[in-house]
Amino acid sequence: MTEEIKGVQDYYPNDVAHCYGCGSLNEHGHHLKTFWDGDETISRFTPKDYHTAVPGYVYGGLIASLIDCHGTGTAALAAYKNENRIPGTNPPFRFVTASLQVDFLKPTPLGIEFELRGKILEVKGKKVISEISLYADNKLTAKGKVVAVQMPDNF
Amino acid sequence: MTEEIKGVQDYYPNDVAHCYGCGSLNEHGHHLKTFWDGDETISRFTPKDYHTAVPGYVYGGLIASLIDCHGTGTAALAAYKNENRIPGTNPPFRFVTASLQVDFLKPTPLGIEFELRGKILEVKGKKVISEISLYADNKLTAKGKVVAVQMPDNF
Repeated sequence: MTEEIKGVQDYYPNDVAHCYGCGSLNEHGHHLKTFWDGDETISRFTPKDYHTAVPGYVYGGLIASLIDCHGTGTAALAAYKNENRIPGTNPPFRFVTASLQVDFLKPTPLGIEFELRGKILEVKGKKVISEISLYADNKLTAKGKVVAVQMPDNF
Repeated sequence: MTEEIKGVQDYYPNDVAHCYGCGSLNEHGHHLKTFWDGDETISRFTPKDYHTAVPGYVYGGLIASLIDCHGTGTAALAAYKNENRIPGTNPPFRFVTASLQVDFLKPTPLGIEFELRGKILEVKGKKVISEISLYADNKLTAKGKVVAVQMPDNF
């Protein structure tokens, strides 16, 4: 029996682990999992056949959603690293998105797994800015920038 | 028997009407419908209870997705108006998103219908830029900008 590899989202506290995009406790959601890969972060995702823009291609809303969640996961990883800690140590980090920019560079094909890669641009106080690239079949099809902030107490 | 009110998406040609966010032919999708309301455009949407960010609030990916689709619908409406035509006349307009910017201003509550409103900022050649505002319970919770372009032939 192999143990399931954990993403940073698997360390979100249970009361804030219901995000449709990346929460481990959302039964209906995408369950995106984000890891370190060298100095970059990585998530992988295979869309369903109905996540269509036009037949054969992924709709932009899913791409925006995954860039968003990969950005908040990346922010949490960056915040742990910034404190020389690893996910699973306390206190846990949980970021939300303040702003999201997505450039759709070319159509993203359906039917294959794609890869999201994140680069940390800035870690400052409670804010992390990252640049996210989405690759399908090793081709860059969308690029985004995510400004994430630590979840405020009133959320 | 009342006839269902049509949004601009109901006039998308059948071969490009499968968008998960707004295509009338996507069985699983959101079926967003966009109309004129004076000089602005409007769509309404009620999220499912599992479209969660954290319990009680809508996840940002859905918000980004709806702003995206409301932006492409707004672009199609603006293009018809620019030619003094109405949806249903030929040739039909079908736009896709080149870039999307979303600012999440405050948490968007789950459990209620929300309203998306679009303002046309620019109509130039095959490009339409619009500003989209999302209101929940009459409060502005997210704001976006969508650069939409007419769907290229290779899509």
